[in-house]
Amino acid sequence: MKRKNVIVLGAGMVGSAIASDLSDSYQVTAADFNAEVLNELKKRWKIKTIKCNLREKQSLKKLVEDYDLVIGAVPGFMGFETVKTVIEAGKNIVDISFFPEDAFLLNKRAQQKKVIAVVDCGVAPGLSNMVAGYHHQKMFIERFDCYVGGLPKERKPPFEYKAPFSPIDVIEEYTRPARIVVGGKEVIVEPLSEVESLNFFFCKLEAFNSDGLRSLLKTLDIPNMKEKTLRYPGHATKMQLLRDAGFFSKQPVVIDGKKITPLDFTTGLLFPLWKLEKGEKEFTVMRMEVEGKENGKSVKYQYELYDEFDVKTGISSMSRTTGYTCTAAARLVLEGDYTQQGISPPEYLGAREACFEYVMDYLKERNIKIKMSKK
Amino acid sequence: MKRKNVIVLGAGMVGSAIASDLSDSYQVTAADFNAEVLNELKKRWKIKTIKCNLREKQSLKKLVEDYDLVIGAVPGFMGFETVKTVIEAGKNIVDISFFPEDAFLLNKRAQQKKVIAVVDCGVAPGLSNMVAGYHHQKMFIERFDCYVGGLPKERKPPFEYKAPFSPIDVIEEYTRPARIVVGGKEVIVEPLSEVESLNFFFCKLEAFNSDGLRSLLKTLDIPNMKEKTLRYPGHATKMQLLRDAGFFSKQPVVIDGKKITPLDFTTGLLFPLWKLEKGEKEFTVMRMEVEGKENGKSVKYQYELYDEFDVKTGISSMSRTTGYTCTAAARLVLEGDYTQQGISPPEYLGAREACFEYVMDYLKERNIKIKMSKK
Repeated sequence: MKRKNVIVLGAGMVGSAIASDLSDSYQVTAADFNAEVLNELKKRWKIKTIKCNLREKQSLKKLVEDYDLVIGAVPGFMGFETVKTVIEAGKNIVDISFFPEDAFLLNKRAQQKKVIAVVDCGVAPGLSNMVAGYHHQKMFIERFDCYVGGLPKERKPPFEYKAPFSPIDVIEEYTRPARIVVGGKEVIVEPLSEVESLNFFFCKLEAFNSDGLRSLLKTLDIPNMKEKTLRYPGHATKMQLLRDAGFFSKQPVVIDGKKITPLDFTTGLLFPLWKLEKGEKEFTVMRMEVEGKENGKSVKYQYELYDEFDVKTGISSMSRTTGYTCTAAARLVLEGDYTQQGISPPEYLGAREACFEYVMDYLKERNIKIKMSKK
Repeated sequence: MKRKNVIVLGAGMVGSAIASDLSDSYQVTAADFNAEVLNELKKRWKIKTIKCNLREKQSLKKLVEDYDLVIGAVPGFMGFETVKTVIEAGKNIVDISFFPEDAFLLNKRAQQKKVIAVVDCGVAPGLSNMVAGYHHQKMFIERFDCYVGGLPKERKPPFEYKAPFSPIDVIEEYTRPARIVVGGKEVIVEPLSEVESLNFFFCKLEAFNSDGLRSLLKTLDIPNMKEKTLRYPGHATKMQLLRDAGFFSKQPVVIDGKKITPLDFTTGLLFPLWKLEKGEKEFTVMRMEVEGKENGKSVKYQYELYDEFDVKTGISSMSRTTGYTCTAAARLVLEGDYTQQGISPPEYLGAREACFEYVMDYLKERNIKIKMSKK
């Protein structure tokens, strides 16, 4: 039988991890504007590559025509238009671009086109949504909390932080008002606020409010939900200082006769300090808590995920956890095991027990440690 | 008898405080480039004013000819040249410009010209040097420590700080390597380092290393000396972060195609946040400890100075404590009670018991609180 064809749009860190992970079972093509990353992929894996500009809609539509599945791994600002174009082309897509727009705006069109479009399919959002969706089917959830962070192994002052993705996007997390759910109502809280200390088996971390619930705010009726970002202790105070002093402002100021945006200046200064070195060890850590009533009894589930930089492949844990959640979902779609047409946030997949168990097993097979406990 | 003539060069905050304080006993003239500050002075006090450019050496030399004493209160970067010109004119000067150059380079010329030139004559440096000089005459000092800071009454986040002088000069204190004396040897330590917590009667403050010993490093043979800057707790950590992240760097970076110096950018951003509002209450606090052997016995002297913004006159405590130490010294010179020719750092005045007691009484008369205890 002919192998199925998959095209991965965007061959950045996560796109590359996705392409390589799928290349054992499918005919994979990677498309990107950057010839260098494509060459790197071609050298190491059995992957076809196409150098092209993914922002040109007409050629993108034509490009995806021949494939059984599209993976969207472009930068966030390009994500929505990319998914829209793929839907117009009538192709199924699993997307991890985490675009800021509301994906459900594309739901009707996807249904008309009979397209399966899974969005936000990384680790958080992504796996966290699946966990919420899974338990939501089986119990009344009173509280769902998710704590997540990607951190360097080496704690280097002054920030003890490296950005596993663009520093601009990290700072966006520190400035965008965070939406959480309290007592059944959506509430806006300050990002970096309500700092708490959490013990993990390997060290103490701190957690603060961030805006990460996204689709869960609308899809699941859970009266108390929050997402918090994990960092080494002291990070929130430092970021609060920079934010409150105006270093993250998007309002230009005039310095020495030159108009400059503080955020541009700050990211310019922080970029070299926050850049993960080639081969630098980092890890991803996530804790999810699901509390409520199941079969008339009070229950509390706790999930802890831990993953590290893969020394053998050189793939970062952020790319592994994001990418492999995406490839698990991609396989479910490709094999006809997830068939819901229209826009699917990951909680829709999680709500199907077989899909959820498949994803969890898939991640464990790839040595991503996930520990579940029930009380 | 004709009143003596004094000219104050520079009518900024401290220069104005000096001019007004001397105007009851002397014929005072204030010279500045800024007509506005001169008008303000003329309105409130019996003071003559001259608008002129103090950086023009020939006219400055001519300007000071008719006066019995010159007070130097120009910005630091102009200080050395100003003192030099005044010495060339053969006029006595008391200076509070705190210029970065070594004043003793002018010593020989001042002696040739028979000029009394008291430099660094503020609160710290200034009064602190006098205390060290005074005790140095009377005992063997094993340790001299000085803690000093000027702070706003209201603690406003994120910095809980207002600069009683230019923010550029404040940041200079946070970046210039600090010279201290340990076991008889001059040692260079990191500014903002060795943060310690100190209790004052009104609140808890923190102290960190700064480069404030200046002439004391050379003039007095004390085996252990340090100066530390006082701030509300947490300030050092914040400044360390900005410094270590490169926000105080003088190396230009290119952002968005524009060449910009991080220090310029940062001071531009901090200036509005650190600016004392008109009439905003601030205070000056200083603790000095002198430890050693006196008449064969171990002794420890502690001085604590506290002063606040003067609501009646609108003069800040930083201007009061700096300015009135200067005017006390000015009166000693004018009345023939301090006569040593050449360059005099304040410890030379302090070494004369009558001078030291005069200055201390003078400050107390002006309601600057100084408490001395002996153990």
